[in-house]
Amino acid sequence: MYDIIIVGSGPAGLAAAIYAKRAGLKTLVIEKEMLSGGQIINTMDVDNYPGLPGISGFELGDKFRKHAEAMGAEFETAEFRGIEHENEETKVVVTDKDSYDCRAIVLAMGASYRMLGVPGEQELRGMGVSYCATCDGAFFRGKTVAVVGGGDVALEDALFLARGCEKVYLIHRREAFRGARILQQKVFETDNIEILFHTQVEEICGDGVVEMLQIINNKENKKSSLTVDGIFIAVGLTPNTDVLKGLVETDENGYLIAGESGITSVRGIFAAGDIRKKPLRQVVTAIADGANAIHSVESYLVQL
Amino acid sequence: MYDIIIVGSGPAGLAAAIYAKRAGLKTLVIEKEMLSGGQIINTMDVDNYPGLPGISGFELGDKFRKHAEAMGAEFETAEFRGIEHENEETKVVVTDKDSYDCRAIVLAMGASYRMLGVPGEQELRGMGVSYCATCDGAFFRGKTVAVVGGGDVALEDALFLARGCEKVYLIHRREAFRGARILQQKVFETDNIEILFHTQVEEICGDGVVEMLQIINNKENKKSSLTVDGIFIAVGLTPNTDVLKGLVETDENGYLIAGESGITSVRGIFAAGDIRKKPLRQVVTAIADGANAIHSVESYLVQL
Repeated sequence: MYDIIIVGSGPAGLAAAIYAKRAGLKTLVIEKEMLSGGQIINTMDVDNYPGLPGISGFELGDKFRKHAEAMGAEFETAEFRGIEHENEETKVVVTDKDSYDCRAIVLAMGASYRMLGVPGEQELRGMGVSYCATCDGAFFRGKTVAVVGGGDVALEDALFLARGCEKVYLIHRREAFRGARILQQKVFETDNIEILFHTQVEEICGDGVVEMLQIINNKENKKSSLTVDGIFIAVGLTPNTDVLKGLVETDENGYLIAGESGITSVRGIFAAGDIRKKPLRQVVTAIADGANAIHSVESYLVQL
Repeated sequence: MYDIIIVGSGPAGLAAAIYAKRAGLKTLVIEKEMLSGGQIINTMDVDNYPGLPGISGFELGDKFRKHAEAMGAEFETAEFRGIEHENEETKVVVTDKDSYDCRAIVLAMGASYRMLGVPGEQELRGMGVSYCATCDGAFFRGKTVAVVGGGDVALEDALFLARGCEKVYLIHRREAFRGARILQQKVFETDNIEILFHTQVEEICGDGVVEMLQIINNKENKKSSLTVDGIFIAVGLTPNTDVLKGLVETDENGYLIAGESGITSVRGIFAAGDIRKKPLRQVVTAIADGANAIHSVESYLVQL
């Protein structure tokens, strides 16, 4: 019987493991793959984790993992299948391999960026293909980049990047943006943003790093190419909550509804990291979530 | 004219500076002392900052500072005196030395632990005298410690410490606790917690590290001594918000009212770190606040 089972071993899950072990809780982390670190392992350079400038995502994930291991957290590599039975005292976490009893659960399975699904995207990820302007934008100062998308995030990313980049192409497949009017207005007013409506990326090209995009105007059915140093894909993020099947309350996009304390709609089940409805998804906010969730777990266990 | 002025250079302020510079904002940090790091500089060993296990508080604060400097943040050592004039476009931050125009402000002046004000407390701070069980408790595994206080935090600290420590004395000057009934009940049920009501600490003694407490029973006026390895003082925390004089909405204890986004009651003024009303005050939640506040600043500046 574990005090706490943490599902997911990205920054949120690993921070939760560190805090749980420091609180003297018997702790199990269930992870999909041995390779801890969640989404950051695909980040070329994490330059915004205070105290460790310029570290690679892979190395940072590894440091988090080793820290949690040194504190004595147990790990199990298995696929989370759900929470089969739950009552006030005991919950059962089910994986493809086994099932585990525990008193509380922290859900930290994260979210996945939606991909364009074009040639070159997977191969050049972290080498000029990015899904997070806040994370990677600073590496493209003075360079030319493209942003793909038409919602708030795409518009914000374009504005953010335009402050540091020489030129920003904003590529959107439709004839108008979905994003907030005020953001649209700013985008239209910004000299170094060039908007390409009715345009789709067909291929991301480059020898080891992004060098060029093959694009198509879907109205005129005309192909062309665009020389860029990077491409920021902002076509959405999907929380990894499918397996929960309505057990825990979510918003319309599938994110678990929980405030910064991590308390969800189900007593004894807590949420941490990108899986939660929250204003900013970053390593620093994920680890804060891990700490907050364990703080809430402690209060919960006292009352159990 | 700065885009953003950050007041305070603890983890929240320094994380905000890193994020602000990455967002391309002209950034000034106003700090009371050159010695950055806020409250953590008094922590003997910060073992819960993921990725940097066992680092000293001083060293961690220094790493944060160097990171912010490397990103190009400007620093000014001065005492913050207030925000003299504010309107939608420009705010003026006043210090004892000068005044500075800016478009937005992040308040990150933190909070200070209330001290007992007894001999030995200041001298042995970080050497067995602690104000944060979550931060330092793990270093006292198998040892004997005292907790001073009678509110929720003192009771939670005693329960937390009792899980790892050989013995916990819970010292309270009154005849009953103020804390939640459920916590009181758990404290009474815990075998290795010994409660000393009507008791005050008169002196903290030790040669380099805490070894003993001089205590007095204030009902019987009887003095005695208590052999301990550490003392956790949980008699309250005071946010450093005096100078704001009602400008920004606070709760009854003086904390700035702001959610995890850092948005306060005044447009263009944001809060980050211990100064904010929040569930858990830790380095990790402070740096998350710094990032969230800058994310909110960016949205604010777009709309300005």
